Parts: sequence; structure tokens; C-alpha cells
Amino acid sequence: MATVWMNELSWVDYQARITSEQPPVFLPVGALEQHGPHLPLGTDGLLSAAVAADAAALVGGLVAPTLSYGYKSQPKCGGGQHFCGTTSVDAATLIGSVRDAVREFARHGLKRLVILNGHYENQWFLIEGIDLGLRDIGPQGTLEVMRLEYWDFMTESTLADVFPEGFPGFALEHAAVLETSMMLHYHPSLVRMDLLPEDVTPNFPPYEMYPIRTDWVPPSGVLSSARGSDAAKGSLLAREVAQRIAAAIRSGFKS
Amino acid sequence: MATVWMNELSWVDYQARITSEQPPVFLPVGALEQHGPHLPLGTDGLLSAAVAADAAALVGGLVAPTLSYGYKSQPKCGGGQHFCGTTSVDAATLIGSVRDAVREFARHGLKRLVILNGHYENQWFLIEGIDLGLRDIGPQGTLEVMRLEYWDFMTESTLADVFPEGFPGFALEHAAVLETSMMLHYHPSLVRMDLLPEDVTPNFPPYEMYPIRTDWVPPSGVLSSARGSDAAKGSLLAREVAQRIAAAIRSGFKS
Amino acid sequence: MATVWMNELSWVDYQARITSEQPPVFLPVGALEQHGPHLPLGTDGLLSAAVAADAAALVGGLVAPTLSYGYKSQPKCGGGQHFCGTTSVDAATLIGSVRDAVREFARHGLKRLVILNGHYENQWFLIEGIDLGLRDIGPQGTLEVMRLEYWDFMTESTLADVFPEGFPGFALEHAAVLETSMMLHYHPSLVRMDLLPEDVTPNFPPYEMYPIRTDWVPPSGVLSSARGSDAAKGSLLAREVAQRIAAAIRSGFKS
Amino acid sequence: MATVWMNELSWVDYQARITSEQPPVFLPVGALEQHGPHLPLGTDGLLSAAVAADAAALVGGLVAPTLSYGYKSQPKCGGGQHFCGTTSVDAATLIGSVRDAVREFARHGLKRLVILNGHYENQWFLIEGIDLGLRDIGPQGTLEVMRLEYWDFMTESTLADVFPEGFPGFALEHAAVLETSMMLHYHPSLVRMDLLPEDVTPNFPPYEMYPIRTDWVPPSGVLSSARGSDAAKGSLLAREVAQRIAAAIRSGFKS
Amino acid sequence: MATVWMNELSWVDYQARITSEQPPVFLPVGALEQHGPHLPLGTDGLLSAAVAADAAALVGGLVAPTLSYGYKSQPKCGGGQHFCGTTSVDAATLIGSVRDAVREFARHGLKRLVILNGHYENQWFLIEGIDLGLRDIGPQGTLEVMRLEYWDFMTESTLADVFPEGFPGFALEHAAVLETSMMLHYHPSLVRMDLLPEDVTPNFPPYEMYPIRTDWVPPSGVLSSARGSDAAKGSLLAREVAQRIAAAIRSGFKS
Amino acid sequence: MATVWMNELSWVDYQARITSEQPPVFLPVGALEQHGPHLPLGTDGLLSAAVAADAAALVGGLVAPTLSYGYKSQPKCGGGQHFCGTTSVDAATLIGSVRDAVREFARHGLKRLVILNGHYENQWFLIEGIDLGLRDIGPQGTLEVMRLEYWDFMTESTLADVFPEGFPGFALEHAAVLETSMMLHYHPSLVRMDLLPEDVTPNFPPYEMYPIRTDWVPPSGVLSSARGSDAAKGSLLAREVAQRIAAAIRSGFKS
Repeated sequence: MATVWMNELSWVDYQARITSEQPPVFLPVGALEQHGPHLPLGTDGLLSAAVAADAAALVGGLVAPTLSYGYKSQPKCGGGQHFCGTTSVDAATLIGSVRDAVREFARHGLKRLVILNGHYENQWFLIEGIDLGLRDIGPQGTLEVMRLEYWDFMTESTLADVFPEGFPGFALEHAAVLETSMMLHYHPSLVRMDLLPEDVTPNFPPYEMYPIRTDWVPPSGVLSSARGSDAAKGSLLAREVAQRIAAAIRSGFKS
Repeated sequence: MATVWMNELSWVDYQARITSEQPPVFLPVGALEQHGPHLPLGTDGLLSAAVAADAAALVGGLVAPTLSYGYKSQPKCGGGQHFCGTTSVDAATLIGSVRDAVREFARHGLKRLVILNGHYENQWFLIEGIDLGLRDIGPQGTLEVMRLEYWDFMTESTLADVFPEGFPGFALEHAAVLETSMMLHYHPSLVRMDLLPEDVTPNFPPYEMYPIRTDWVPPSGVLSSARGSDAAKGSLLAREVAQRIAAAIRSGFKS
Repeated sequence: MATVWMNELSWVDYQARITSEQPPVFLPVGALEQHGPHLPLGTDGLLSAAVAADAAALVGGLVAPTLSYGYKSQPKCGGGQHFCGTTSVDAATLIGSVRDAVREFARHGLKRLVILNGHYENQWFLIEGIDLGLRDIGPQGTLEVMRLEYWDFMTESTLADVFPEGFPGFALEHAAVLETSMMLHYHPSLVRMDLLPEDVTPNFPPYEMYPIRTDWVPPSGVLSSARGSDAAKGSLLAREVAQRIAAAIRSGFKS
Repeated sequence: MATVWMNELSWVDYQARITSEQPPVFLPVGALEQHGPHLPLGTDGLLSAAVAADAAALVGGLVAPTLSYGYKSQPKCGGGQHFCGTTSVDAATLIGSVRDAVREFARHGLKRLVILNGHYENQWFLIEGIDLGLRDIGPQGTLEVMRLEYWDFMTESTLADVFPEGFPGFALEHAAVLETSMMLHYHPSLVRMDLLPEDVTPNFPPYEMYPIRTDWVPPSGVLSSARGSDAAKGSLLAREVAQRIAAAIRSGFKS
Repeated sequence: MATVWMNELSWVDYQARITSEQPPVFLPVGALEQHGPHLPLGTDGLLSAAVAADAAALVGGLVAPTLSYGYKSQPKCGGGQHFCGTTSVDAATLIGSVRDAVREFARHGLKRLVILNGHYENQWFLIEGIDLGLRDIGPQGTLEVMRLEYWDFMTESTLADVFPEGFPGFALEHAAVLETSMMLHYHPSLVRMDLLPEDVTPNFPPYEMYPIRTDWVPPSGVLSSARGSDAAKGSLLAREVAQRIAAAIRSGFKS
Repeated sequence: MATVWMNELSWVDYQARITSEQPPVFLPVGALEQHGPHLPLGTDGLLSAAVAADAAALVGGLVAPTLSYGYKSQPKCGGGQHFCGTTSVDAATLIGSVRDAVREFARHGLKRLVILNGHYENQWFLIEGIDLGLRDIGPQGTLEVMRLEYWDFMTESTLADVFPEGFPGFALEHAAVLETSMMLHYHPSLVRMDLLPEDVTPNFPPYEMYPIRTDWVPPSGVLSSARGSDAAKGSLLAREVAQRIAAAIRSGFKS
């Protein structure tokens, strides 16, 4: 079976694929960011690449190398930039990385680019990068770009299964049940369930302060409990997400 | 009674205020963006300035001139950039505007800056602007910045009053009941309730496409019904928001 | 009578105007800058917006929201950046703001954009912003941009009336008779004639020093006497400027 | 045995390592670039990460996620930007990625950062990124950065073994014996020795032309023969490079 | 006698001068811009360097290499960008060139930098470059920068001698009597008095249009008559300017 | 005989040349950088301009004003940024200077631009500037750009003559025999052979450290001996380089 990883193809094989099949190409975007004591720093990149690979396999797509460094972590969604190990980029860098990618894939003759985001803070800089990349290409360009956060493809019904006591919402889902379960599915050896911190629910006010109030954030970096995570839930989520992304790709592009 | 508008003060009066009272200064950030046939293009800037003025009056603060041009409108939150009249800025411009403001207010000796956002798409570029501004100032700086979207200060209880049939969520609240009611409270002459479009609920998929799918967006630009808007609701919301922002300012800053 | 303020129009009304009448749109550009003890910090933005509104009324034009933050104040024309309250932007920010505006108004299908400047220091960054905006649009674009400083529309004859003892020249006219008189005409409640400082005429050498020599600048920030300012002079100036700008617009554009 | 991959560590473990051992952290930098019909597009990133991992294992270091997109391919060293599949970034993007990384690792308290380059075209943009990152940190910073191209650690003696008929020099060593042998050592399944193109030696003049002269470059993208490549040579080279880099790290840093 | 040209000194001699004498260093800034049929494209750079050399000789200063490319030519002061041969830079480039120079001369330990401008359009971008360079250096820096346009050192009395029928003002003095006379003094072989165009006085309105109205500008590019230029006038002007700049340097710096 | 210096031509003459002969235009790029105690700071700019003038004379070309400030000096090729007198620019500035030049010469209708580099560190930023300039021009542009380092036109045979004991390679040829001989040919009065420092051969490791290890570099700044330099060698080298560049220009462009 052919690889989905673009960087493992020779340019000759890649060109043949682009010419004959017009595969969608996925660009996973992650982060290097604290995810508590039980998940690795690379969680967002690992999950976005894994989801992209699963979806690519379903639609005959390819996965380009992950953008592994994401936008600066914010207290309410990722804990904040004060954690050791969190390694982030300025807006201009992330915007430029995406802008360049859009311009280059258009040069290849690609028709369908899927920017698959796994780090909440990245979203708006991806939007700007895509907009500027398409501006560079000009109105004659034929590349279409789909942008998505993979968790938006989880259905309410599945979330109800995963959270029998009620889904607390995506707001504090950092290093919590969804990410931990999916990591247990995809990369079980990188998860340390024995190191789950005490449950502490931060009580964020409806505003933000800069410089960041580090005392608002639990010292562990975990914003919501990961208790109850397991590989079966991860598998359920991963399968649903990949299948629904595949469906979106089949129907969402014009070409 | 003293004005809250910074641009109406002489520098001598401003300096006296900064020296003696250390007032919080509000920087409202809006947009020039379609808001359906019944609301004006300047809605986001008008509301953020009005809310800022009300909150400033409660805490002895000042309101700096509004940043009137916001980040590019997106289909799911503002209808998209294809509407005539929507006039937006690139990320770099908005980031620069905020960065410069942070650096300048710090030079004034200000201790408390409140960046009050009224346009959903602005949020992450404000964050970057604040971060870079504080980086410019350096670790010795004494300016603290509060950043907020004003609608996050509406309580569930008030939203329940405003939406007796259930609050549909902030997701599609563009040119809908909240904004329309607040405009009827603050700027009734600018609202044309007789021009409310037919209710059409767009059915957005969990991803976005670029170039933008203009056919996903109702031709009116309204994403959710504004029916039921009235000035009383606007007054209720405006009062609550101003009071709760004032409370946040009293307790949220270190200085 | 229809409003001239673009931000008070709905997008539907704006589009109808653009389509049917091709009105000129004015973009006022000001500053938040010390103007002595007798004039407010927002003088430049207030005056450029007021002049734009008067001229727009004469030609059926519209006025877009003011760019309220200008380029850094220089000692010889605005007193310098050391004054508390002066709140300025870097060149890149002002250039970007204008570039984005040019690109957006071109997208609307506008044919005539008038960038009306009220802060001397802005001029060259407006030029660069216009140039880059037109570069973005490309040679096929049909938008023409007029750029002007409003005081250049005062005739010698009127200046002779306003200054019976001889017009001292625009060089030191910061917070002096012209601006003060026009503020007395447009915003009398914001002028404090009782606080006019002692007349001190700075004696600038034919070069500039950086870091700025704050001792070259009168502590009041006033570079030339405002004595003799009155609303009648302001009215005379305002009327002449608006009428002559209107005439320029009628004859100056190709379309 | 502990992992060398930083993205597989939790932030807690990473912080513990930084605090107790001050490990060197490697940042591999590659490219997504044509490497002939026999090597994959990701060759430069795969090799720089593999070499980094080997060297890290020898010195107790860690390897951060690879920067997988490199500077634009040039005809004489990488074939040129006209190849389908080559996916490159602008100078500003690569400079920004490195600048941000330097600033972030310094924030972690890291003392030794090793930027290990595997794509010839990247070199000068890495230098600028490091310089600007160190400028951001300021003269009080304690982070030292080592920058290297891994092939510079091959000794003449080993090159003489690998090229019994004489080492032709690094100039045209793109997708040739060194890279192919090292890929056969590290990633044999990604090498297609059966697809080696006919040997064609391009005859480049001592200047470059832009737009690029695509006819100067062999259609295969291979600039020099890969014939004679084998895994044993790759192993020899890989071992030498890793050991000599390890030695450099032990002696080259001040701390 | 020692050279004034910095680029002719070895670094050892330059360092010795900086250490022992703290000479002022001049940075001339010119343009490559049409100057009518009788003056060369490099006039602004040639004159700013010549004036700098004369002034440097008087104060024991040095002259750094000229920035030979200036900001984009404008119709009212330089004819406009539509002339063949005019070769200009974007604002960001000129700002960057000056910013970098300020930062580098500060690193040398220089105390007195004189940025001597010979192209009207450059002025505000020099200001921004100096401001950003000093921001880079930080408040502890000891470099002072003087910025000047050389023509501002011409006295009214000398201008009265040069223009016996009255000085028409600097406004249209592009390729006219002042520049032509000074070129006849400094570089007579580059002046073609036999090619002076017919006198045509453009009649510019008090606004500017973009794209540029090329029909406003005389086809020769000359905005005002150069008739009456001669080397004696040039010598008079050159001597006065150099002496008065020298005096300014002696008294204008703090150190 | 007509001048080769573009800045000495009037725009009328320049335009006539461009229209009738389509001359190649050379853009020399140098640096202001320490070159030991015996060569001046401006060596790289002086040599690149001199070579350009010689080559231009052979092909009927013109020489535009030199870009006199180069990219930051590196220890292994120029000694490093710690030397007093070395005055360099950031990457963005050099890239912008070249990008703007490419765009402007294309506007002139030029077909052949030769960017002639005399400072090793500049190379990759010239490449990026050319690439971005051509991107600005778009695919319809007809300007071709040749980029070269002049020393690459020295033949092995000539190098064998110049170095009877064997050419040590270009690696350490900074302020050594090649540059010193060529300066003795072109600018003998600027060379101080009596000040040649003691021969010290630095022993650089195969990596670089940042902040720079100033102790790796000889205090004189000379990386390799200049002993044996003479004007005859310089003349030989200069003649060969100019003739071979001229030949390249005759055959290398499409138009």
C-alpha cells in the first residue's frame, strides 16, 4: 500500500500522483506545548498528523510534513507561555509558513489543500496565511484550501458516549479526556496515566491579563480532568473524525 | 462632569489625570463590516466605544480613539470579505496598531490599559499586538493590559431573559438580537428594524473553504434572526456589561 | 438629508450609493497629539473629519472612519514624542493602514478615494501606503486616490484676512491660530482660550537632533501664538477649505 | 533508555532535564525538495533528524522537532524551484522560525542549542535567524548556539574511502553518493536504487541566471552520480559525523 | 592630509580615529533620479557626498559611503516615478538602511553621526530609520544623530545674491538653479548647460493624485528654470553650507 | 568615450541607451568591512565597482551605484561583526535593496541586469532579493538577472600563476593575496603593504558558535597571508575576470 507521507515519496512519484489523481494534500499544524505531566510536548503535532494520515488513507490523499511549532500558548486554552518546554512562534512566522505553503502547493498544480489544525491558538494565523497565500496566487489560481480543527468533526452523540456525565465543552479541553484518549489510541507509549495530576478546575474570569497571570493556571498545566481517558474512547473519536473529514473532502471541494 | 473621551482632553489635563488618579484607559477596537440591511457598517466600533464609555464612567476611566478597522470578516462570524462596504485590515496592520498603542501608553506612565474588543475576528491579532508591545517595553515595564470581548460579560441569567426561547449561542450572533438590541439602546436612529431580512439560518459545515464560499452565507449578511430585538433588552445588556467590566477593572489589575 | 458618515450606513445602502452615484469617499487621517493646554489631544483627527464632512456634503460624498493615530510627533511641527498624551504609530503601521484601505475600497468598486490629512507628520507615510495599495491592486485597477493636507486649500487672501499682521507661515502652525480658530468653529466646547500659554517662539536650528532635544520645545507644546483665534476666522477658513476641496474633487479625478 | 525526541517528553520531564543536566538541544533543519527519482522529497529533514538523534544519544541531548521546509532550492545545489514537489519557504519565514526558536529556548533556561542543517540553501538564513534571536535576548542572555552543516564533519580520510576514485567535492553532492548512502543506512525502505537515473553531469557556468535556466539542470534533478552508494558507506559516514559532532559539542560550548 | 572617506581607511585607522578624536561621521543620502537633460541621475548623491566631504574637512570628520538610492520621486518635488532612470526604494528599505547604520555606528562607539540628506523625498524615512535605530540601541546608548537637508543651511542673504530677482522658494527647486550651480561647482563635467530645456513652470494644484498625473509634469523633468546657474554661485552656496554645517556640528552635539 | 557610470548620465541619455542598445546594467554589491590593517574598509565595494566598470566597458554596459553596505561579516569569511568599522545591514535590508532595484530596472524596460557581488556574505540575500523582485514583476516580465561573485571567473590556470606554491582555496581569501593584488592594481594608494600583519592561520572548527568566538579570529582580521600580493597579479586577475564576465554576458542572456 502506498505511503500517505509526502516526504517519503520521490518527486517523480509525487508529480505522477498530482498529475493523475489530484490527491488532496494535508498540512498538519501542531505545537510544541506543555500538555501536563502525562502527555508529551508534541501532542498537538502528533495528533494532527495522525488524524491527517487516517483521513488521507480514506481519500487517497497525502500528508505533508507537520508544522510542529504553533502560536503562543494562552492561559485559557493551553496554559500560557510561562511553561518550560512550550516553544512557540510569533504570528508573522506562522502566517509566513502557511502563506509560503499555499503558494508552493499551487505551483505544483495541486487543487485541494487541507490545513488540519491541532492547536487551538493557531486558527487565526492559519486564516491569515491562507488569505495572503491566495492573494499571492491571484484570482486565476485553481487551488482551493480547506481549513479545519479536527475536534470540530466529533459529533454530539460521540461526545455523549465519551462523557457519560456530560461533555464539559471544548473550552478547557487541553490535555484532558479528548486529547489523552486519542493519544492512548495513537501513541500509547507516550502517555503516563500514572502521572495524572490532581483535578483542579481553574476559574478563569471573562477577560485576560497581560503579562499573563500565571497564578490563574494550575501548576500542572492541565485545565480539565483527563480521568476516564482510555484508548477505546480515543479509537472511537479518531475513527469518527477521520471518516467525517474524509466525507468533507469528498463533498467540500469544487474540483 | 469630566469627559471620558481622551481625545477631548488637552495633554495637560490628561497628564494630570495620569499622574494623580492613574485612570484605566480603554482602547475600543471595532470593524467596518456589513451588519445586514438593518444595522450600520460601523456597528462593532460604535458598540465597543459605547460600552467603553459606560464602563469608563463607572471607574473614572478614559476612552482612547477607537481602532475602527478590524480584521478580515469571516463567513461564519461576520459574513465574509465579499460584502461591499466591509473594509478590513491585514493581520500585520492590526497587530502593529495595538503594539504601538501598548508601547505609547506605557511611555505615558499608564498602569492600566483595557483593550475592549467588539469584533470577533480581531481577538487573536489583539493578543499578538499586546504580546509584542509588552516585549518592546521589556520586563521592567509597569503597564498591565486587560483584554476582553464585551459580550463575555453577559450573564447566563440575562441571556435567558433576552432569549426567552433559549440563547442560541454566540456563534452566529452577528447582526442578530444582541447587537441589534444594543444598537437600539445606544444608537436607535441608526437601526432600521423595518428592513430586517427574512430569517435564514446558514448551515455551516465544520470546516472552512478558501476562496470563501459566498453561497454559504445569506445574501443579507445576517447569520441569525434579529427579530425580538428591542431597546429595553439593549439597555439591560449594556448596563450589565458596563457594570461587570467596571468590577473586573476594580479587581483585575495588580496596581 | 442623508448622512455623510460611512459607518452609519448599512452595507446595502453603501453598495447602492457606490453603484448608482460613485460618490467620493473621504478617509480622514489625524493624530492623538499634544496641542497645548488649550486644544484637545484629538485636534488633528477632529479637524480632518470635520473638514471631510463639510466637503463630502458639498459633493455627495461619504466619510470613512478616521485613522485617529498618526505618525510620531516631531519637535518642529508637533512638539515631539516626549509629551504625555501624544500617542503615535510606527511608519509601518500607518503605511499598512492606508495600504489596506486602498485595497479594500478598490474591492468595493470605488472610483474616487480622498485621503484627507490633518497631521503634518503623516504625509509621506500616506504616500507610501497609497503607492503600495495601488501596487497590490495592479495596473488594471480603476480606483484613483487624491491625497491632500487641508490647510493647503487656504488661499493667500484668506490668510491675509486671518493674519492682519502677516501670515507667519505654516511652519510653526501647531496649536496656533489656524487650528485654534477652526476648533472654535467646529468644537468650541473643547477649546480653552483661558489657558493660552505665554507666547514663546522657539528658535529651531536648521537641523534636527536625535534623541530629541526636549529643551528646544516650549514646555506648553505650543510653537506659535494662538492669540487672536476666534470662531469667525475658523468659520471663514473652514468654509473656504471645504469649498475648494469640493471643487478639486469635481475637477481632479478622471472618472 | 530515555528518548532523545523532545516532543515525546512531557514538559515536566523536559524541565527536569534542563534543570539537572543542561542537555544540548538539537534543532534539525531540512527541506522538502526533489532528490531525484531514487530518494524521497524529505531527504534533508530525515537525514538531519537522524544525525541529530545519533549525536544526541552520544551526549545526552534532546532533539526538537525538525523544521521541515527549507529555503528555495537553487539549480546548482538542489536543482531549482521548478521541480514539482519541492516546497520551500521565503527567507523571512525561515529567519523567523529560527529567531523564534532561539528566543524560546533561551526562555526555557537552555544553555546549549545546536542548529543542525541538512539543506545547503538554508545556511545564511539560519545565521540571520540566530543573530536576530540573540539580539532579542540581549547581551545578558546565557544561551549559546552552535550551527553546523552535518557533512562538514566528514573527514578527508573517510571521503577517500567512500570515493575510491576521488571525492568530487560537495558542490554537486545533491542526491548523490553521500546522501544516498546515508539514506540507505537510516531509511533503506525509502531508497529506490533501481531508479537511479542515467549519469548526467551538468556543466554549470560560474554565474546564475534568474528566472532560472531549467535547461541547465538534468531533468531527473540529480546533479552527480549516486552510483556506488551503499548502506555500509552510509553507516561509516553517519557514525563519523555523529561522533565528531558529539565531540564538538563537548568541547565547543563555554558552558 | 588624511582622507575624509571612511571606506578608504583601514579598520585599524578608523578605530584609532574613533578612539582618540571621536570624529563626527557623515552618512550622505541621495537618490538615483531624473534631474532633467542637463544634470546626471546621481545628482542628489553626488551633492550630498560633496557637501559632506567639505563639512567633514572642516571638523575633522569622516564620510561613510553614500546611500545612493532614495525614496520614490514625487511629481511636485522630483518629477515622479514614471521617468526612465529614476531608480528608487520602498520606504521599508530606506528605513532599514538607516536603522541598521545607526545601530552599527553605535556599536563602533561613535558619538556623533550626521545624516546628510540631498533628496527631498527621503526626509521622513530617515526620521523613522533613526528612531528605530535608537530604539534598538536602547536608552543607555550614547550615540547622538544629527539629521539635516543641506539646503536648509543656505542663508536668505546668499539666496538673495543667487536669485537677484527673488528666490522662488525651495518648492520647485529640482534640477534648477541651486542644484545646477552646485553641480557646476563640484562636477562641472557632468553638467550640460547646452541642454537646458525650455522654461516651463508646472502649475500644480494643492493636492496629489495617484496613479500619478504624468501630464502635470514637464516632459523634461525640470520643475523650475536652471537658467542663470553658474559655478560661482555654486561655490558660494557650497562654501556657506559646508561652513554652517560645520558650525552646527561644533555646537549641536552634547558630546 | 562614453561613461559607464549610470549616475553620471542624464535620464535622457540613459533612456536613449536603454531604448537603442539595451545595454546590460551592472549593480555592484560590496560591504563596509574590516580588511586587515593594509586594506581599506570599502575594499569589497571598490573592487566590485571596478570589476563592473571594466566589464561594462567591454560590453557597452552601464554601472549603477554600488550597494556599499553588505550583510553581516562572519568569522570564517570576513572576520566577524566585532571589528570596529565593519558596518553591515540586516538580511531584510539587503533583500529589500535588491528587490527594489530589480523592480525598478524592469520598469525602465531593461532586459539585462548583472548583480556583481564582491562580499561573500551577501550571496544568499541577493538571491532572495532577485527572487522577490521577479515575483513582483510577474511572469510577463522580460528582465533577466545574472548574479555572480567575481572571483568565480578566475581560472585555475591563472590562480596557479598567482599562487606558485598552490592556491589555498577561496575559503580564507579575505584581505589576502587576491583582494590585495586587485586593490594594488585598481587603488594602489589605498593599500599599505608595509602594514601587513604577521601571518596567522586561524584554525576554524567545522561549526560556528554564536555569540561569535572572537578569539578564533586573528586580531588583525586577516584570515590568510597577503604576502606576495602585487599589482601585476592584480592586473592579471582583473583582466581575466572582466573579460570572462563580458563573455558570460554576451552568451548568457536570452535577449
